[in-house]
Amino acid sequence: MIVSTIASHSSLQILLGAKDEGLRTRLYVKPGKKAFYASTRLVDELIVTEKIDTILDDDGIVIPHGSFVAYLGLEAIERAKARFFGNRRFLRWETSFELQDRALDKAGIPHVEVVEEEDIRPDELYFVRLEGPRGGSGHFIARGEEIEGRLERAEGNYRVERFIPGVYLYVHFFYSPILGRLELLGVDERVVVADGNARWPVRPLPYTIAGNVGVALRESLLPELYDYGLAFVEAMGKLEPPGIIGPFALHFAYDGEFRAIGFASRIDGGSNALHWYGRLYWDEPMSAGRRIAREIKLALEEERLEEVIT
Amino acid sequence: MIVSTIASHSSLQILLGAKDEGLRTRLYVKPGKKAFYASTRLVDELIVTEKIDTILDDDGIVIPHGSFVAYLGLEAIERAKARFFGNRRFLRWETSFELQDRALDKAGIPHVEVVEEEDIRPDELYFVRLEGPRGGSGHFIARGEEIEGRLERAEGNYRVERFIPGVYLYVHFFYSPILGRLELLGVDERVVVADGNARWPVRPLPYTIAGNVGVALRESLLPELYDYGLAFVEAMGKLEPPGIIGPFALHFAYDGEFRAIGFASRIDGGSNALHWYGRLYWDEPMSAGRRIAREIKLALEEERLEEVIT
Amino acid sequence: MIVSTIASHSSLQILLGAKDEGLRTRLYVKPGKKAFYASTRLVDELIVTEKIDTILDDDGIVIPHGSFVAYLGLEAIERAKARFFGNRRFLRWETSFELQDRALDKAGIPHVEVVEEEDIRPDELYFVRLEGPRGGSGHFIARGEEIEGRLERAEGNYRVERFIPGVYLYVHFFYSPILGRLELLGVDERVVVADGNARWPVRPLPYTIAGNVGVALRESLLPELYDYGLAFVEAMGKLEPPGIIGPFALHFAYDGEFRAIGFASRIDGGSNALHWYGRLYWDEPMSAGRRIAREIKLALEEERLEEVIT
Repeated sequence: MIVSTIASHSSLQILLGAKDEGLRTRLYVKPGKKAFYASTRLVDELIVTEKIDTILDDDGIVIPHGSFVAYLGLEAIERAKARFFGNRRFLRWETSFELQDRALDKAGIPHVEVVEEEDIRPDELYFVRLEGPRGGSGHFIARGEEIEGRLERAEGNYRVERFIPGVYLYVHFFYSPILGRLELLGVDERVVVADGNARWPVRPLPYTIAGNVGVALRESLLPELYDYGLAFVEAMGKLEPPGIIGPFALHFAYDGEFRAIGFASRIDGGSNALHWYGRLYWDEPMSAGRRIAREIKLALEEERLEEVIT
Repeated sequence: MIVSTIASHSSLQILLGAKDEGLRTRLYVKPGKKAFYASTRLVDELIVTEKIDTILDDDGIVIPHGSFVAYLGLEAIERAKARFFGNRRFLRWETSFELQDRALDKAGIPHVEVVEEEDIRPDELYFVRLEGPRGGSGHFIARGEEIEGRLERAEGNYRVERFIPGVYLYVHFFYSPILGRLELLGVDERVVVADGNARWPVRPLPYTIAGNVGVALRESLLPELYDYGLAFVEAMGKLEPPGIIGPFALHFAYDGEFRAIGFASRIDGGSNALHWYGRLYWDEPMSAGRRIAREIKLALEEERLEEVIT
Repeated sequence: MIVSTIASHSSLQILLGAKDEGLRTRLYVKPGKKAFYASTRLVDELIVTEKIDTILDDDGIVIPHGSFVAYLGLEAIERAKARFFGNRRFLRWETSFELQDRALDKAGIPHVEVVEEEDIRPDELYFVRLEGPRGGSGHFIARGEEIEGRLERAEGNYRVERFIPGVYLYVHFFYSPILGRLELLGVDERVVVADGNARWPVRPLPYTIAGNVGVALRESLLPELYDYGLAFVEAMGKLEPPGIIGPFALHFAYDGEFRAIGFASRIDGGSNALHWYGRLYWDEPMSAGRRIAREIKLALEEERLEEVIT
C-alpha cells in the first residue's frame, strides 16, 4: 500500500507517519522545492513535476491537506479518479463563511460575532477576516474608522468580526470510523508575523502564519472542547454523509470562554507542532499524520478500507 | 497497586505516568466531564459522581494535584483516611501569602517586593495578586491610581506587588526520598488571556491561564534555579516535617535576575507541557506524572512505601 | 572514546546525546555550578575547577558550544592541542559584523539592512545590535532620536539596523561530511525579557535571552531555508576550508520574507528546544547534540575521524 501527497503544509508529518506505520510513500513536488524533500528519508517515490495535479490520477491512497484546494481546486478534487483518504466532500466546508457557520450552528458550537456594517463604531477594534483558509494572510485588526480604507486593497470576500482579545487555540481531532472513536490529538497556537508586537508594539501587523507551537491546554478546558468535537462530528454526519473521516480541527478564541473562529476540514497545519495527547489513546507517540496511516492499516486489517476513503 | 485522582488539572499526566509504570488507575469524574475522560485508554476504574469527595475514603494511593484544595478543602484533605502520595501538610503552604513568604525566606530565595498602600504611586504599574492558587484569574496589572477602583470587585485577600516587566518561568522539581535526590524535570511559560495583547495592545487583560508551553531554559540559568530548589527542599524539611515528598514548582519573574512570585506545593499544571529535562536523570522520557508513579514503584520494591505517603 | 565539553550553553544536550550514542563523557564545571550537573546521570568524569581552560589540553574530543569563545578566547581555541569536533576556524566567523556579512553575502542570503548614521530618522524605530554573540543582552530597540543617548552606555562595537517588525526564527542545521548531507534539525524562537511586553507594553525591554521554544515552521517555508543552508555550507567551504563540519544555525527575521540577522558557527542554544525534524533523517529522535555524537560514531566506524575534527 502506498500513500501519496503533495509537498507542502503537513506532508512531512503525513510521510513520517506513513513510514512509522510501515507504508510506502509517494510525494509530488515542484522542482524548486526538490532539494529539501529529497534530503529526507521519508519519500519512497519522489515525483518532481510542475504539474502537481497529476496526483489526481494517482493509484495509491491520496492524503489531502491544507494546500490541496489551493493547488488543485475543489471541483477537480471532487471529480478526481484517485482514492482520497477521508470524505473529500467535507473539504468544501471550510472554504466559505456560509458553510462554516452552518456547520458550527448545526453542532451548537458558539462562534465569534459578525458585525454588520451599520453597527461598526469608529473607535472600536474589529477583526476583518477574509473568506477561506489563507494561512492567516489578508486578515487584519483595525479600528472601525480604518476598515473601509483598508478593505479597498483586500481581495475576495470578507467579514467584520467583533474582536476578541485573548488567546487563539487550535484543537486537533481525529474521528475514526474503524474504532468509532473521536480522539483529541493536540492543541497549538499559531506563530504569526503580528507576534512581532509582543516585544514592543509598532503598528498592527499581518496575521500571516510563520509556524506553530504546541500548547498543553489547561486540563479543565479539555472536556468542553472534546464535547464540541463530538457535536461537530455528529453534525457533519448529517450535513455531509458519510460525515467526517479522519483529521479535522476546531479554531477558537479564548478570553475566559471559547468562541469558534473557524475550522479545518482536513489535517490542520498546527498539528505539525509537537504534542503528547496522542498518548491518551495510544501507547506510543501519535501525530495526526501517523494517525492517518494507522487508520489505513487498521482498515486494511479488517478489510474495511472503503469506509475510510472516498 | 492502584493510584487514584480527580479528573482535572494534571490528572491526564498522572494517569498516563501510572500506565507507563504499569500501575492500575482510578479516576473520580463529574458526569459533565465523563465523555472526554472515558474516551481515553488511561482509566482502569472510572468513578462517575457528583460527590468527588468520596476520593477521601479511597483505598488506593491518592495523588493530589492543583484542584484538590479547591474541590475538597484543606481540612478535609488533612483529616482524610485515604493514603496520599507526598506530604499532605505541605499542601497548605501555597495557600496564603504568609506561608509562602515564610517558606521562601527560610530558603533564602529572593522574591517579588510587596508594596505598602502608602507607597503606591499613581502613575506606576503594579501587579495585584490575589491570595492562593487561582489559575491566574483575579490577578491584574494596573497603574497605582486605578488599583483602588478595581479592587472593589476583587474577592478574597490580595496584595500589591512591584511589577516586574520580563518573562515568567515556572520550574518543575521532584524530590525523591527514596533516591535522596532532587530532580529538575522541566520549565514552562503560562499561556494566559493577557497574551492576547502580544499582537496588538488593547487594554490590560486577565491573567487567566489557558495553557502551558515548555521552555528550554538558557542553560547558564539552570544551576542557580537548581540551588534554589535544593534550598527550598531543605527549608521545608524544617518547616513541615517530613518535608517535601515528590513534585513541587517554584514560580519566578525573570528580568535578568530571578525573583520568586510563588510556588506550587504539589504537581504544577505547567508540568503538563512537554519537556525533556527528565532525561537528565532517566534513560527514558519522564514527566512529573510518570515520576510520581516511578517513585511509588521504587518505594514498593524497597518496601519503603510509608516514606512517600502520608 | 570520550567527548568533553564545558558546563554551560548546550552541554546538557551534548552530554545526553553522547550517552544516547554510547560514548563516554567528561565535563568541566566551575564549583558554583557543580550541584546541578552532579545531580544528573550524564557525566562520566566531572572535572570541578575554576580553571575551565584546562579543557584546551583535553585528550578526548572536545565539543565546542556558544560559551567557548567567551570562556577561552578565539586565539586560545585555535592554538589548543586538544582535538575539536568541527572546523575550529569557523568559530571566528560569528564574532564580527564584517565576517558575518561576508559569509552571508557569499552564500547569497538576504540580510537585514544596516542604516548609516546620516540616514537615521528621529521618529523611526531601529534595532541597535552589538557585535558578537551576546545572548541577546545589549541589543535594543529605539527611535532614532534616542539612539545616541543610549549608545553612550553600550560596550563594544555596534550597528544600527532597520527594524523588522515580525517574528524571529532560528534554524538549526547539521552538515555531515561523513554522509555528505545537510540536515535541518529544528527551528526555535527565543524567549527574551522583552517578551514581558506581550501582556501589556511597559517600555522597551532588554533582549536578554531566557530560553527557547521549538517552533514547527509553516512547511512551505522550509525548502527556501534549506536552500539557504546549502548555500551557506558551500560558501563556507570556500571561505574557510575545510568548511562547515557539524552544527550551525541561521538566524532570521520573518515579516513575510526572510532576512538573516546573523548566524551561529557552532551548536546554537536554541537547539536545546524540543523538535522533531531530526526524524526527517533518522528513525529515532535526533537532537543537534545527539547528532554530533552520531557523526563521531559514524566517522569512527569508517575510520574517518580526521574528517570531522580539527
